Amino acid sequence: MTQLTDEIAKVALQINNYISNIFKPKEGDVLYQAAYHLLKAGGKRLRPFLVIKSCEAVGGSADMALPAAAAVELLHNFTLIHDDVMDQDVLRRGVPTVHTLWGVPMAILAGDLLFAKVFEIALDLRSRGLSAETISSIVSELAKVTVTISEGQSLDMSYSLDKKMISEHEYLNMISKKTAALFESSSAIGAMVGKADEVTISALRDYGFSIGMAFQIKDDVLGITSTEETLGKPIGSDIRGGKKTLIVIHALNNASESQRKEILKVLGNQNATKQEILKVINLLAEIGSVAYAESKARDFINNAKKALMKLPDSNAKRLLEELATFVVERRL
Amino acid sequence: MTQLTDEIAKVALQINNYISNIFKPKEGDVLYQAAYHLLKAGGKRLRPFLVIKSCEAVGGSADMALPAAAAVELLHNFTLIHDDVMDQDVLRRGVPTVHTLWGVPMAILAGDLLFAKVFEIALDLRSRGLSAETISSIVSELAKVTVTISEGQSLDMSYSLDKKMISEHEYLNMISKKTAALFESSSAIGAMVGKADEVTISALRDYGFSIGMAFQIKDDVLGITSTEETLGKPIGSDIRGGKKTLIVIHALNNASESQRKEILKVLGNQNATKQEILKVINLLAEIGSVAYAESKARDFINNAKKALMKLPDSNAKRLLEELATFVVERRL
Repeated sequence: MTQLTDEIAKVALQINNYISNIFKPKEGDVLYQAAYHLLKAGGKRLRPFLVIKSCEAVGGSADMALPAAAAVELLHNFTLIHDDVMDQDVLRRGVPTVHTLWGVPMAILAGDLLFAKVFEIALDLRSRGLSAETISSIVSELAKVTVTISEGQSLDMSYSLDKKMISEHEYLNMISKKTAALFESSSAIGAMVGKADEVTISALRDYGFSIGMAFQIKDDVLGITSTEETLGKPIGSDIRGGKKTLIVIHALNNASESQRKEILKVLGNQNATKQEILKVINLLAEIGSVAYAESKARDFINNAKKALMKLPDSNAKRLLEELATFVVERRL
Repeated sequence: MTQLTDEIAKVALQINNYISNIFKPKEGDVLYQAAYHLLKAGGKRLRPFLVIKSCEAVGGSADMALPAAAAVELLHNFTLIHDDVMDQDVLRRGVPTVHTLWGVPMAILAGDLLFAKVFEIALDLRSRGLSAETISSIVSELAKVTVTISEGQSLDMSYSLDKKMISEHEYLNMISKKTAALFESSSAIGAMVGKADEVTISALRDYGFSIGMAFQIKDDVLGITSTEETLGKPIGSDIRGGKKTLIVIHALNNASESQRKEILKVLGNQNATKQEILKVINLLAEIGSVAYAESKARDFINNAKKALMKLPDSNAKRLLEELATFVVERRL
């Protein structure tokens, strides 16, 4: 595992350097400060890692994939900044969210700027020798995945507002758009930069998609089993926000009548006390819903590993295999 | 003039059809409803007109330029939806703004969706036979202009919040980014689709830029001299919002001490009465600031016409010339 975390850190460093070169010259400008804030606060850079290792796994060069990897990270951060406004979240990666510091208008604008930069950076692939044809495919992928992510966020918002519970199928469809789609695009884009054939791109798509599904389910699990320090945001905020996660869906389908009442009293109640939240968290574990979600995440990880089998052996492929395990075993 | 307005209406119809085909299949989806709302409410489609006529003026086909023209209109509408959230405007094109109807979160998301669609549509140029090389240039132009527009909006917001008056130079720089840049890109993109050489693209850039500057200055003029019915939004909302338009800047530089006090009392006062607003509007005319802005707009129009002289004669060129006059003579 050590080598994987080293490699993740190495990619993160390259990405951070690339991104800092974009924002450094504009340090004095409040718009650029706001746009850079969340990026500067860290993050594992897993999506860029997928781009770069997928590129290497099909025989491409990491250096060539760097702008594409940075573009994906900017795209991710653009959606986070806007999501935080929409969800009124005040903390992310252990720092105050952009709108908390600069207000909603500047946060909207900072997100828009990042999104525009995504495409500016993607065009930078030209200077690294990529064909205009391939760049067009990558731009198309980036545009389409943003449409998909927006649809996913729209579903997530309407599910949170709606009193009605959703089915497991609806939940999986929502996270496939909101989260898994960008993981899928990340590995697909890496493969495109590496000039892979359609079958290989498709295998890496499957891999990225499954990783993304497992990642989101694990994220929901960590959102209630981790600590505030590790997570960089309050525990149970999903419960307060009324998010219908796989855990909550499973719990409500398998709870006794009294357990059910107990959960529904707290779910979506922004004024719930810490004690009430902890009680619900204990219930979710008791009913077996946390374990259920973890087993679902492992299923996706097995799919991810199966998809990888279509690729020839390489160091990059081995790292992608290890990443699959890491995504469900992580504590952060 | 009749032929120009006919031609503008013809382009608007084509654009509206193209855009309706994007949104029709998703009618039931609230996100797509919100994203389509402002587009459906109308608008002159001047930017698409610039794209298409610039393309024709360099010998290209209107049909080929259609997706690019639609992309520019979507980009424009994306910025309007987000601007309305930021400026808390409730009315636009005579209808309630998106966030007024669906709330801020959905308005943010609707804007994001439109922005993503901009690039999805730009890629549609491939199916009309445009080279990947030219499409890359257009995508780059669209990304860069969005960065510029965001910078302009950021300046506009900080100028509105700041008590300090800005200079005419600062004002012109701000509107060059916020408004003129997209007009400039529109005519440049049209020329790119028409495979024009660099000199011609540059002449059409100059033309579009000057049109955009004149358009914004005239817009500021109409914002205080028009009627609410014609404008589709309240008269004097710029004054209530504390917007530092060319008119206001000129007035404060040329007002007597008592006039100055009178203006500053109302400028940026969201609770100003209709009577107070009307009094300030009369003052702005008295000082000669409205006439000053109109003469500035005409200067830019003369620049626009000069830039056009570098192009060979054609029907499209003649329409672009007429458009220049239309921009400053319009009452709407």
